[in-house]
Amino acid sequence: MESLSKNKLKFVRSLRQKKFRKEHQMFIVEGEKMVLELCAQKPDLIVEVFCSKEFDFHNSHLSVTFCTKTEMEQLSAFNTPNKLIAVVHNFDLKPTKEEFILVLDGIQDPGNMGTILRAADWFGIDAIICSEDTVDIQNEKVIQASMGSIFRVPVAYKNLETFLDSSSFPVYGAYLEGENVYQQKLTSPAILIMGNEGKGIRPNLERFITHQLTIPRFGSAESLNVGVATSILLSEFARNF
Amino acid sequence: MESLSKNKLKFVRSLRQKKFRKEHQMFIVEGEKMVLELCAQKPDLIVEVFCSKEFDFHNSHLSVTFCTKTEMEQLSAFNTPNKLIAVVHNFDLKPTKEEFILVLDGIQDPGNMGTILRAADWFGIDAIICSEDTVDIQNEKVIQASMGSIFRVPVAYKNLETFLDSSSFPVYGAYLEGENVYQQKLTSPAILIMGNEGKGIRPNLERFITHQLTIPRFGSAESLNVGVATSILLSEFARNF
Repeated sequence: MESLSKNKLKFVRSLRQKKFRKEHQMFIVEGEKMVLELCAQKPDLIVEVFCSKEFDFHNSHLSVTFCTKTEMEQLSAFNTPNKLIAVVHNFDLKPTKEEFILVLDGIQDPGNMGTILRAADWFGIDAIICSEDTVDIQNEKVIQASMGSIFRVPVAYKNLETFLDSSSFPVYGAYLEGENVYQQKLTSPAILIMGNEGKGIRPNLERFITHQLTIPRFGSAESLNVGVATSILLSEFARNF
Repeated sequence: MESLSKNKLKFVRSLRQKKFRKEHQMFIVEGEKMVLELCAQKPDLIVEVFCSKEFDFHNSHLSVTFCTKTEMEQLSAFNTPNKLIAVVHNFDLKPTKEEFILVLDGIQDPGNMGTILRAADWFGIDAIICSEDTVDIQNEKVIQASMGSIFRVPVAYKNLETFLDSSSFPVYGAYLEGENVYQQKLTSPAILIMGNEGKGIRPNLERFITHQLTIPRFGSAESLNVGVATSILLSEFARNF
């Protein structure tokens, strides 16, 4: 049983920045539920666990540091720190099949990204391909909102033009002024592209899009949240799976 | 042009608490877009506007206080303060018709509540009825996530048993183990009940529910975010509007 050194605290906090996550090929997972699930299902990924002294946690196979409340507050990226925080190795999930692929073009908000991961996991989407400027899935707020789905959905960051050039699937894109999605015959294999929160899909991707889709509006909101819009469109495809 | 007094700062900050909002029948709206929309569309609601000195804002009909960056930080409930903050009067939206009503049984997360309001606004839902312990729609994070929809969707807080007793509409409830929503013939008039994030719909409401609905799962996520689930179900009803 170790105690928290200054160096270790500094190291964990450094992992809140993408460049250090890249350098060390590690990231942070916060939260009792997610860390316990990791310990049970993917213990090899875990580098170290930090546990609040008040929390009843035993695991003889893992390196565990018990921390005071103040130390947990220093480790945590959240205002209300979790009772378990783990440093974990990067991992690479390979898609088992590639029939339905979700493409994200510049999603910025970590909460939206987490919501999209969770919905993609629910609907059994085979893979997510993100533009290189899409928010990092190892961002702590993405991980929190994903509720563990980051460990189940294969995600890759790529140049989207190169990726779309290499695919022969029909490509659906979400627009405010496209075809009514309720009246489309949606089939897989397929690619669905969702654009940035404010700007939508970038013009350079338009030439790849074979079908522009819209969720019809019946009321007055200017737009739907992109996590919601993605989930509704995934559900529309799922109806035909 | 007034400057920010200590008393005024204290008053605005007090409105972050529900009891003071209730006492004064006022609440806070933050954000350039939402405040400008309010100034244009519902100026009578506005008690006072606080504006960052850097921001170009002119309105001779409203009481405007120009503030330094530090003052805006003190006024704002967010880490990154907005350039416009308004104190507004409570208001009461009356449903123009009551054919599709969304009932929320103990939604706790302000972000989810805002997302639900925005989706209800998009799909033209007639009214939202919330249990008395559902998060307050005047919470700053609800307002922010609703993107202005709180000014368009009629919302009331009621005892749900009394409300449901008084209605003769079919009542749909969202469950993890109900009927596949894709195979249901959904009609309006109708009531749709969504439950709390962790606990779902409370057992005391079960006797009112005529149809238990489920969004089928194709993958591995344990559940969907309640904002997402609500939006998908509203979309399923909207297909038949």
